[in-house]
Amino acid sequence: TAAGVFTRNQVKAAPVLVSAQHLQSSVVRGIVFNAGNANCCTGERGEYNARRMCELAAAHLGCAATELLVCSTGIIGHQLPMEKVEAALNEFDLSRGDEINQAVARASMTTDTVPKYFAAQREIDGQLVTVGGQAKGVGMIGPNMGPMAAPGALHATMLAFLTTDAQVEKARLQSTLQHAVERTFNSVTVDGDTSTNDTCLLLANGQSGITIGAENQRAFGELVELVCLELAKKVVRDGEGATKLVTIEVTGAPTEGDAKTIALTIANSPLVKTAIFGRDPNWGRLAMAAGRAGVPFDAHRLSIQLGEVQVFRNGEPTDFDLHAAEAAMEPKNLSIRVRIGDGPASWCAWTCDFSYDYVKINAEYHT
Amino acid sequence: TAAGVFTRNQVKAAPVLVSAQHLQSSVVRGIVFNAGNANCCTGERGEYNARRMCELAAAHLGCAATELLVCSTGIIGHQLPMEKVEAALNEFDLSRGDEINQAVARASMTTDTVPKYFAAQREIDGQLVTVGGQAKGVGMIGPNMGPMAAPGALHATMLAFLTTDAQVEKARLQSTLQHAVERTFNSVTVDGDTSTNDTCLLLANGQSGITIGAENQRAFGELVELVCLELAKKVVRDGEGATKLVTIEVTGAPTEGDAKTIALTIANSPLVKTAIFGRDPNWGRLAMAAGRAGVPFDAHRLSIQLGEVQVFRNGEPTDFDLHAAEAAMEPKNLSIRVRIGDGPASWCAWTCDFSYDYVKINAEYHT
Repeated sequence: TAAGVFTRNQVKAAPVLVSAQHLQSSVVRGIVFNAGNANCCTGERGEYNARRMCELAAAHLGCAATELLVCSTGIIGHQLPMEKVEAALNEFDLSRGDEINQAVARASMTTDTVPKYFAAQREIDGQLVTVGGQAKGVGMIGPNMGPMAAPGALHATMLAFLTTDAQVEKARLQSTLQHAVERTFNSVTVDGDTSTNDTCLLLANGQSGITIGAENQRAFGELVELVCLELAKKVVRDGEGATKLVTIEVTGAPTEGDAKTIALTIANSPLVKTAIFGRDPNWGRLAMAAGRAGVPFDAHRLSIQLGEVQVFRNGEPTDFDLHAAEAAMEPKNLSIRVRIGDGPASWCAWTCDFSYDYVKINAEYHT
Repeated sequence: TAAGVFTRNQVKAAPVLVSAQHLQSSVVRGIVFNAGNANCCTGERGEYNARRMCELAAAHLGCAATELLVCSTGIIGHQLPMEKVEAALNEFDLSRGDEINQAVARASMTTDTVPKYFAAQREIDGQLVTVGGQAKGVGMIGPNMGPMAAPGALHATMLAFLTTDAQVEKARLQSTLQHAVERTFNSVTVDGDTSTNDTCLLLANGQSGITIGAENQRAFGELVELVCLELAKKVVRDGEGATKLVTIEVTGAPTEGDAKTIALTIANSPLVKTAIFGRDPNWGRLAMAAGRAGVPFDAHRLSIQLGEVQVFRNGEPTDFDLHAAEAAMEPKNLSIRVRIGDGPASWCAWTCDFSYDYVKINAEYHT
């Protein structure tokens, strides 16, 4: 069985449209993908080429084209060089087995500097269940993925492929993935630019012999979320030009949606991200970004903490030690906590800083 | 009479709160402001100091403190150095008259590199009416200003002060300003970070002898909008690190609100802004940013134009000349047009590019 979530961008790449259709198949046998060309904004020919990628791969694998999912990442607006795709598929050697995992993570890299993969195991009903995956993406990262209601006109750049040996019926696999993605991939950002091609897929082959049902759903869901979170954090850590991984926790909100909106607004603020690059404890920018999120709150209840240093409490600056606040900005893994009131809900978002190298990478990207 | 719009940020600076209150006075006689310190996130003492600024200035001018408006811009979270404020007000010399206009524009500069002022005249009912103003602001620029419904907990960094010699009753002056600001200051961005202190004020003294009513409202409204637009564009042109002024026009939308949302999402996209800095005709990023705005449209109807070069039409790339597209990215004043369908509404937004210097200015800003 397979589950998938796709970009909510109105402009969706051809492979996103095709994968959303193929996900309706009762059986999914694999994923075929390319890096360097997004096959997005490529019109009818683009959609034909995405289907053709599935057909070519299916011929090698001995399955139906509709049993394969397809993904692309790279530049937008250029037709796929199908002769290269065909040649690569002709060279493909299934017998390489285990070593394929790392090769896949490497093959999906564009401006990524490291391959990103992670796996975890957990005992469920006395048996080890494994979830593993790989992800790519370092720019155009502000994922906002959901189920594809009705395939329409589509595009993606954060790609994550997960597999598990659990046996999970399709609807349960889909809801498990959606829940995990919301709290992980959909809560990280590099530049807030939601790609046209974002896709996260989870394939389950049942080889462990363990069937996931209502009684062991929670354990399995946590395992999937753990793998998604580790992959999502690897994406942010490798964010274009990033020097820091920043965790932003918003608490005391009326709803999780409110907390998420504020956390991601802070996470996407250029002034916050440049201050973090400069290791400047400029907490006023955090107050500004929290306040501009469009979520109502009482500014007299706003409190802010940099690492362990409380710099602002209930609308008033504290008498904090400037050196301690500066020291809190030094670690490679930074933590920022913002409390907006006494509500029950909280949310975590992850971001990176905004550096000269982000500008360099994206100003010199070649069209 | 006076009109004012203030930041919609939930976190509002003390002077924003105080000005919103004083704007209720039947007569407003002036504006007192400082640069370098935002008097924001400064709690009760901050609000006391904002009122104190009005009192000190009122004593010099011989009016009531509540007849003055107050603004601050600068760093957040530090108390105002009131001894400096008091000393400056003691030195203030009203007799300097005309030369004050430029001095005001200079005094409000923080990271601004040039003073920004503009005035225009128009014949209304056979008499010249003048509207003039000055603005400051180059970073933390993503204004979203509206009337202050009820003064609550407030903060601002885009400051614009306009005056006119027309005679306009308060409610009409307020609605004229709101309409103009929505299409000008609220449609420009440098970094999308809506400040805690944004304030735009318009004072009318009636000296021209021309009264604005229903019959000549339109001419007066156009004059105010013209001055606001010129000032707003000066803000963007002087945006931190900016090398280009970019006009983004979205057409064919169902509503003006939809067109504005898409135009500002494109205007705030880091990938779009770095591509413009790199003079890269990477129109795929424009399609991505339009699609991620959260406004539904049919991607098969999306068309994009760089300057005079149509690069994408109804969901398909055109056979455009790459050199022409590259040449379209060269001018200091760039124009980008995005059509999303056949709707009746359109909107213009103005932005600048994202350069190494933006990172430098904001990473090295001193807390």
